[in-house]
Amino acid sequence: MDKVRVIEIKQSVFANNDKQADILREENRKNGVFLLNLMSSPGSGKTTTLTRTIEALKDKIKIGVMEADIDSDVDAIKIAKTGVKSIQLHTGGMCHLDASMTKQGLEELGTDDIDLAILENVGNLVCPAEFDTGATKNAMILSVPEGEDKPLKYPLMFSVCDIVLINKIDVMPYFDFDLEKCKEYIKMRNPKAKVIPICAKTGEGISEWAQWLLENINALKQ
Amino acid sequence: MDKVRVIEIKQSVFANNDKQADILREENRKNGVFLLNLMSSPGSGKTTTLTRTIEALKDKIKIGVMEADIDSDVDAIKIAKTGVKSIQLHTGGMCHLDASMTKQGLEELGTDDIDLAILENVGNLVCPAEFDTGATKNAMILSVPEGEDKPLKYPLMFSVCDIVLINKIDVMPYFDFDLEKCKEYIKMRNPKAKVIPICAKTGEGISEWAQWLLENINALKQ
Repeated sequence: MDKVRVIEIKQSVFANNDKQADILREENRKNGVFLLNLMSSPGSGKTTTLTRTIEALKDKIKIGVMEADIDSDVDAIKIAKTGVKSIQLHTGGMCHLDASMTKQGLEELGTDDIDLAILENVGNLVCPAEFDTGATKNAMILSVPEGEDKPLKYPLMFSVCDIVLINKIDVMPYFDFDLEKCKEYIKMRNPKAKVIPICAKTGEGISEWAQWLLENINALKQ
Repeated sequence: MDKVRVIEIKQSVFANNDKQADILREENRKNGVFLLNLMSSPGSGKTTTLTRTIEALKDKIKIGVMEADIDSDVDAIKIAKTGVKSIQLHTGGMCHLDASMTKQGLEELGTDDIDLAILENVGNLVCPAEFDTGATKNAMILSVPEGEDKPLKYPLMFSVCDIVLINKIDVMPYFDFDLEKCKEYIKMRNPKAKVIPICAKTGEGISEWAQWLLENINALKQ
């Protein structure tokens, strides 16, 4: 299965993104669709984490994935192999997705049979944090090789996320990464953020993350 | 030396960034200032690479460094410890620097006594590639943990760079990173790009990179 559906996303025409985001969030809530916006730097392990997340949850809930990328379909092809519905969104050079672009994606994905729709945002710690996509929750991945100082340098990203996954903890012995200091910096930016250390490669920590997702998905439906 | 000069950069007022970039490049050429624009993802090792580069070159040429960051001064403090002139540029949330912002930085840094001015751009593989800073040459760092597929996903960044440093090669055994495939993807985007594998932590490859810089700095002055 090496072919995936590729959608060329059009740039937003709405001046007020925050309003569009609130409307989309409310629509999704009414339809019982939990929209997760997953953000990180390039190469932090978003796609591998998603593959593990799908493995952990696909027998419990129905999942659909939108892979946003400037170009290339490599991520959507990986996700399609897991058997869940997935599409590739091409942003045409754009560094982020806003609510209107996300809505286009959801319409192309089709959410009638979906409990959890995941948007894998463009790999970028700056711009995606500035645009509310209308997601029910925002998650981000910080990987060990990037260093524990990232919450100091990209404050907004950490402020807007409900949960931070610290990935690649298997390589901690080979990097100068201080996990406690990292948690402290995250709390400094966002005292409410949940932090889960994971290793998408080995599966460590994925069950705690899947549990967090399930609880939040169930909370939306109540 | 824990205090560095912090400059709040104003957003560009010029519509035509390319023209401003050409003017700045020509001014620098006349003044014998080689401006290097260094780009990468967050956490790829720009600052550590710069520290090594300064060690290798500071007895041969006069260096000044501009550390661009959305917030925080952590990088400029590290660079100041090497003894070279350095300032911190705060972009006020902006995800990149353009030619006018770079010019503000150079004026604050002062280039009368500088052969090599280095701009450490905001950690981001998308937006910095879209704005010509007026640099004499563009360099980027791709680190092994990010994966060899990045030239497929961030094509413009690789197209605009004269040289790509593949950093953190010491951890190659712990990651599924195919160096030959990575070089092939880079050549696909940019057949002229020079590629040097390095390890900023151990110093491996730094002499080849320093040599490339020296040759290009000398070429500018001829």
